[in-house]
Amino acid sequence: MPAAAVIDTSKSPHAKLHPAPIDAWKVEDAFWTPRMERNRVVTIPSQWELLQRTGRLDNFRAAAGDPEFSVSGIYFNDSDVYKWLEAACWALLAGPDAELQANIEETIALIAGAQRADGYVNTWFSGERADQRWTNLDLHELYCAGHLIEAAIAHHRVTGRTALLEVARKFADHICAEFGSKRQADRPWADGHQEIELALVELSRETGDQRYAEQAAIFIEARGHRCLGRPYGRWGSEYHQDHVPLREMETLEGHAVRAMYYLSGGADVVLETGDAELQAALERLWEDTRIRKLYVSGALGARHEGEAFGDAYELPNARAYAETCAGIASMMFNQRMLALTGDGKYADLLEYTLYNAVLPGIGLDGEEYFYVNPLADRGEHRRQPWYDVACCPPNIARLLASLPGYAASTAGNAIWLHLYLSGTVTLPLENGRSVTLRINSRYPWEGEIDISVDTTGFFALNLRIPTWAFGAKLEIGDFAANVPIQVGGYATIEREWRAGDTIHLSFPMVVRRIVTHPAVVENEGRIALRRGPLLYCVEAADHPNTDVWQLTLADDEPVTPSWRRDVLGGVTVLTADALVPAPDPGWDRWLYRGLAETLARQTVYKHRILTAIPYFAWANREPGAMQVWLRRHGG
Amino acid sequence: MPAAAVIDTSKSPHAKLHPAPIDAWKVEDAFWTPRMERNRVVTIPSQWELLQRTGRLDNFRAAAGDPEFSVSGIYFNDSDVYKWLEAACWALLAGPDAELQANIEETIALIAGAQRADGYVNTWFSGERADQRWTNLDLHELYCAGHLIEAAIAHHRVTGRTALLEVARKFADHICAEFGSKRQADRPWADGHQEIELALVELSRETGDQRYAEQAAIFIEARGHRCLGRPYGRWGSEYHQDHVPLREMETLEGHAVRAMYYLSGGADVVLETGDAELQAALERLWEDTRIRKLYVSGALGARHEGEAFGDAYELPNARAYAETCAGIASMMFNQRMLALTGDGKYADLLEYTLYNAVLPGIGLDGEEYFYVNPLADRGEHRRQPWYDVACCPPNIARLLASLPGYAASTAGNAIWLHLYLSGTVTLPLENGRSVTLRINSRYPWEGEIDISVDTTGFFALNLRIPTWAFGAKLEIGDFAANVPIQVGGYATIEREWRAGDTIHLSFPMVVRRIVTHPAVVENEGRIALRRGPLLYCVEAADHPNTDVWQLTLADDEPVTPSWRRDVLGGVTVLTADALVPAPDPGWDRWLYRGLAETLARQTVYKHRILTAIPYFAWANREPGAMQVWLRRHGG
Repeated sequence: MPAAAVIDTSKSPHAKLHPAPIDAWKVEDAFWTPRMERNRVVTIPSQWELLQRTGRLDNFRAAAGDPEFSVSGIYFNDSDVYKWLEAACWALLAGPDAELQANIEETIALIAGAQRADGYVNTWFSGERADQRWTNLDLHELYCAGHLIEAAIAHHRVTGRTALLEVARKFADHICAEFGSKRQADRPWADGHQEIELALVELSRETGDQRYAEQAAIFIEARGHRCLGRPYGRWGSEYHQDHVPLREMETLEGHAVRAMYYLSGGADVVLETGDAELQAALERLWEDTRIRKLYVSGALGARHEGEAFGDAYELPNARAYAETCAGIASMMFNQRMLALTGDGKYADLLEYTLYNAVLPGIGLDGEEYFYVNPLADRGEHRRQPWYDVACCPPNIARLLASLPGYAASTAGNAIWLHLYLSGTVTLPLENGRSVTLRINSRYPWEGEIDISVDTTGFFALNLRIPTWAFGAKLEIGDFAANVPIQVGGYATIEREWRAGDTIHLSFPMVVRRIVTHPAVVENEGRIALRRGPLLYCVEAADHPNTDVWQLTLADDEPVTPSWRRDVLGGVTVLTADALVPAPDPGWDRWLYRGLAETLARQTVYKHRILTAIPYFAWANREPGAMQVWLRRHGG
Repeated sequence: MPAAAVIDTSKSPHAKLHPAPIDAWKVEDAFWTPRMERNRVVTIPSQWELLQRTGRLDNFRAAAGDPEFSVSGIYFNDSDVYKWLEAACWALLAGPDAELQANIEETIALIAGAQRADGYVNTWFSGERADQRWTNLDLHELYCAGHLIEAAIAHHRVTGRTALLEVARKFADHICAEFGSKRQADRPWADGHQEIELALVELSRETGDQRYAEQAAIFIEARGHRCLGRPYGRWGSEYHQDHVPLREMETLEGHAVRAMYYLSGGADVVLETGDAELQAALERLWEDTRIRKLYVSGALGARHEGEAFGDAYELPNARAYAETCAGIASMMFNQRMLALTGDGKYADLLEYTLYNAVLPGIGLDGEEYFYVNPLADRGEHRRQPWYDVACCPPNIARLLASLPGYAASTAGNAIWLHLYLSGTVTLPLENGRSVTLRINSRYPWEGEIDISVDTTGFFALNLRIPTWAFGAKLEIGDFAANVPIQVGGYATIEREWRAGDTIHLSFPMVVRRIVTHPAVVENEGRIALRRGPLLYCVEAADHPNTDVWQLTLADDEPVTPSWRRDVLGGVTVLTADALVPAPDPGWDRWLYRGLAETLARQTVYKHRILTAIPYFAWANREPGAMQVWLRRHGG
């Protein structure tokens, strides 16, 4: 049976749905298979080289006492190794890969060699800093521990081997001893960067040892009392979400990645405990974020300063922060809320975030990354092969390597499909049988999805109907299915199935013009284009001699999708007859002018063919301006 | 003769105009006298208390070796003492003040006591850090030295005493030895925070010792070669303007206060050397900033991260940085460019910056300060009595105490009036005679200005005509003056004057609606209101039960000024019949919606009386939202 789940809620008492394992899937998807394969053969090996070249692996050699090496880099560099390792383990599910396997085992040996007798592992706090461990909880020791635990679980789930899991358990035992409820009472403090919480809950699931989940709950409760244990920097305790307890929090503030790992850990705790107050806080924060702090790309984090959430409706475009890691962490949070509630809104945002807030983080070549994802740019923002703070590259690698783990769920004798990956998925029912489905579509380019049921028996099949899929149709065999089709939820078909049954789902792929709440001043009088789950943008490469920031679209002008095999590896582009205002030379020497002078000049527009590309694909051609929010005309 | 000039260019070979001394003026101005008086009797004494309470003075006791004290706070805290001292010295010009005098002398004694035998003064680098001096030029040793020198010059000019000037000279000699051209060749590096440059030039003017001006030029040239002497932080060498030499710079980047002190120092060097290439760079940067990076308030610095300039046209309103110190430094730069060129555009921006970018930095009570000056706010941004980084409070104190020093200039047998302070000013002519003028107006509320000439003789009087004063009229006695009136420049009346001659200047105080360059996305479809030299804003306190961010003004709706003695200590408010859109409940639960849904709802507007107040006076009543850029309607 498949066993490699991203999160394994099969024994979580409060899970409504259980995410299906990654290896439940055999993905044969025109969109995703090349991307996952590129992740495996380009991204992961190239990151391995970078981990070596940047001394991140040598740090473990140094920590193990090898005098030929010394610790270098930033204090949280271990976490990059752990995230890479997690990615590499999930990637092994694609089939035997001796070199990757060897690199994994070498890395694990390095980690094990750097572990102290008491279980502690952190290369920064080795050598001359060995006596400073746990003295400054803003130095990411628990954050790195969390990523080590996640990697160990992935390794165990994929290979069945326990070497790294034992390292992780020993470290987790050390952490429980160091930060258990008694110690917490003596010395209250919160860690500088959440991550340990979700990792400990998963370790509890993997080992059956409840102490780890309890420790995660202790960490969740410890935060919010302004007790980081050191002076806060210029961004205050909000930066670490240490200003108010999670269960009392009304809105997300501070560092976005920290916040989303925090909420993920909180949701993991609720999956184990059923804590209704904590769940209500998570639902409240999700909703507040959705209606006040979410970019149209699904990205999170409005401010460069503190890599942080802004105020309500503070969503600058060119200066968006929108860190790739925050998008990944948002997918993790939504996956957990989906497991907790079964509510399709979480799956919807998860999918939308994947396509529009995470996927832009990696180039089509699989070797360059965005850390920051603006929604408008003048052409200077380009993906980089690596970062000194390299959190995003291995994070996107582990996400892509584990992507099928987000696609389906099971519960009882029911099955849920969230992401319409093409391929085959085999899912277990409570009654001991399993169901195999074959899915075939050109999603996300087209909304026609064929599903073949290869199994005979009674079970419920829940098919997600995205929020944008108004007019969705569902046929079983040649007949319209007589079931409610809840947009934003699931169409449930519970019946006796026969092997060979076919289902056809049809989502109208209408181009939609999106407008923003009037409080978002920057988007006034502007629209964004969406089609299916994809956000679109305009880019200079398609508009020679035109400033794409000036492209203006009349409200009643039709926008036409067309498949373009030759563009960006094959994408559906949107085209329309748009307008560009002729430059007003009156502005050449002025930043401000009198209204009267401006009114005296009638703006002259010229026609231009607008070509919009999926936002995830921007910045893969020659540098140039990009814009998501297009000016409206005649609105 | 008056002698207390803010900058004394009387012997600068390349000065076209010479700023008149502060004590050339006897200010009796309905607007400025109460503010200057409050600065003297409230602001400066309360800051003295804060310097004591926060240990800033004790640091000097500790540095002098008094074992009862130890150095505390931030490494640049000495500069706050020096800026306060400069403010206090200028304030002495208002007349004898025994307590202030005593505090000044006590402070000077403390500084002198902390000076090392070799001339070095910096309390941070005393005690255990004494051997670390000049090892990390990002720790503001030269910045603090510059403020010490400025204070010493003020003290000497106001009191004629040399105690602090001798301390400053000795320190400057030490600096010249340490950073002279030979040393610079061995060990190229730039200081972390410009300020020393302008101070050394002024010290050269005060002492007649050219070496100091030469050293300033060395510091100007040393920058721009990425040679801070330590790794740059996350903001790169642009933060310190160390990425490109000043004379090659095309646009301002990085920390705004650093940049403006830098340009001021550069202008000071040009005043001494006549370096045409450097002058061209300064003029180019001034112009680039004016047309691409200047807030409508005159403020500078778009980004919180790095307290920095943004890209061209990056001018967020609610998230403006617009540091008060950057406004003050901009006044300093414009004063120097005015002296260098005589071009009224510099005086115009100097005045506009004073009213709209500097004056908002202090509350009407004289005891609370803005560090950051947003142009839109939800009501949470309030002035504070002090800051850990306390650069702005004493900076605004020294500016207000020396304000008349920015108001007039002389050159040859000509006089320039830049700021129309009411009161009496006596200015020297080259021919050895002096001219006394009496000025009377209700400026900035009204544009009618009466000037009496109390002196008989031939001289040229240049009266500034602000850029906004279209239709300005000038009468001498009862007749229209037969001279060109150049808006944005000066009206020059060169003639034989007779004591008792009267001049009447009339600036039409029209309310103007200002629009922004279309590249500033956030201001699209919006106007700002200006009248005379003042920018206006709307504030919640005048609009109960109305969201002032929603106030919408029809383009053809008249806006009426009226004097309101009861409001904010007496201001001219602007009122108009405005509109507020009725809340659309469709937005309560959504951040993004389809355009079609939005178009289906006709916006319903309600009428509201809009009351705009001068922007400088905002946040002096109960907290509430504020907005500068108003929505246009029917435009």
